[in-house]
Amino acid sequence: MIKFTIITLFREALEPYLSTSMMWKAQEKGLAKFEFVNLRDFGLGPHKSVDDTPYGGGDGMLLRCEPVFNAIESVKAKDPEAKVILPTPVGEIWNQAKAREFAKDAHFIILCPHYEGYDERILSIVDYKISLGKFVLTGGELPALTIIDSVVRLIPGVLGGETSAEIESFSNGDNLEYPQYTKPYDFRGMKVPDVLLSGNHGEVDKWREEHSK
Amino acid sequence: MIKFTIITLFREALEPYLSTSMMWKAQEKGLAKFEFVNLRDFGLGPHKSVDDTPYGGGDGMLLRCEPVFNAIESVKAKDPEAKVILPTPVGEIWNQAKAREFAKDAHFIILCPHYEGYDERILSIVDYKISLGKFVLTGGELPALTIIDSVVRLIPGVLGGETSAEIESFSNGDNLEYPQYTKPYDFRGMKVPDVLLSGNHGEVDKWREEHSK
Repeated sequence: MIKFTIITLFREALEPYLSTSMMWKAQEKGLAKFEFVNLRDFGLGPHKSVDDTPYGGGDGMLLRCEPVFNAIESVKAKDPEAKVILPTPVGEIWNQAKAREFAKDAHFIILCPHYEGYDERILSIVDYKISLGKFVLTGGELPALTIIDSVVRLIPGVLGGETSAEIESFSNGDNLEYPQYTKPYDFRGMKVPDVLLSGNHGEVDKWREEHSK
Repeated sequence: MIKFTIITLFREALEPYLSTSMMWKAQEKGLAKFEFVNLRDFGLGPHKSVDDTPYGGGDGMLLRCEPVFNAIESVKAKDPEAKVILPTPVGEIWNQAKAREFAKDAHFIILCPHYEGYDERILSIVDYKISLGKFVLTGGELPALTIIDSVVRLIPGVLGGETSAEIESFSNGDNLEYPQYTKPYDFRGMKVPDVLLSGNHGEVDKWREEHSK
């Protein structure tokens, strides 16, 4: 079983996604488990503060070390083997090879950072810095869900019994999918290529390979 | 105002994210509007089916043309200027420059496709094919939220009155952020670089530039 513990201030924004469709099925089948830790529970002072202003000046509030370390250590106290993932724009770009590498019997803690930044010393407790790409988001919540979704669907048994996970985009190196068509044959004058209706599997395979993007 | 209409089967998985934090504030301030269209409402037959098997054989179910065209056209009937975004692995890779280009007074329809694929003819009604990166997800829902999040936070007035959106990662070409630190000065023996406490703005700027990743 793969397990993800998500450290966030916005559990209510993430939980519904993980309760839907395939992510729900993965949990029902006992193939994946999702847990949440509320970073606020580890906040400091009467306001349970988790961030503060940057040294040296500048805008925005940075995630502080203490709440983050304490939250992560509360999870590691129960499972010292758990690995920590930090979604950050300076991380390694996420891709299908990485998703495959993570799709195993393991426990990952994903720390969702504040969009304005985090204290650099937090990196000392992080195992994997992951970036979705060269763009900025309001926080680490969507990268966390994206990592989870792309990994969990590769766990054997999660998909509905087909080989879709293997044949689709990127599974074969960087190859993308071929164009696909379903009924009706003629939609507003746009017709399905006749070869796909020929019943000739060799010709179909050839056409698909030629039209792969 | 920027407006996003999301065509999906999983409204309940997406809506909570858009009701949280900065996405909620953007709506409260009248700077952004999010609407949903249930693709199921445009399904075919007694089961309101939206997908079917591929011509030429293969695993999985493909999104059909009719429900998709009808759903999109129901939105365009009210706003013919609305542009259609399709998250797909074969699209252009999303980045901060694109987010900036989309952050304007406009109406975008985002079609969230089924993970197993879509009828190729659907592309004829699409204006922008967008890929989050070289990985596969269970559907277009997370890319839709990611696009919305990265665009909406750039709308003037959405961020809390600071210039954070401008100074941070990627805003300046491909430059990434410098390391940042907040209190405490000494965390478990890891100290903040002294220059950041010097009060010498010239030295602070120089250090930050030298340490930008």
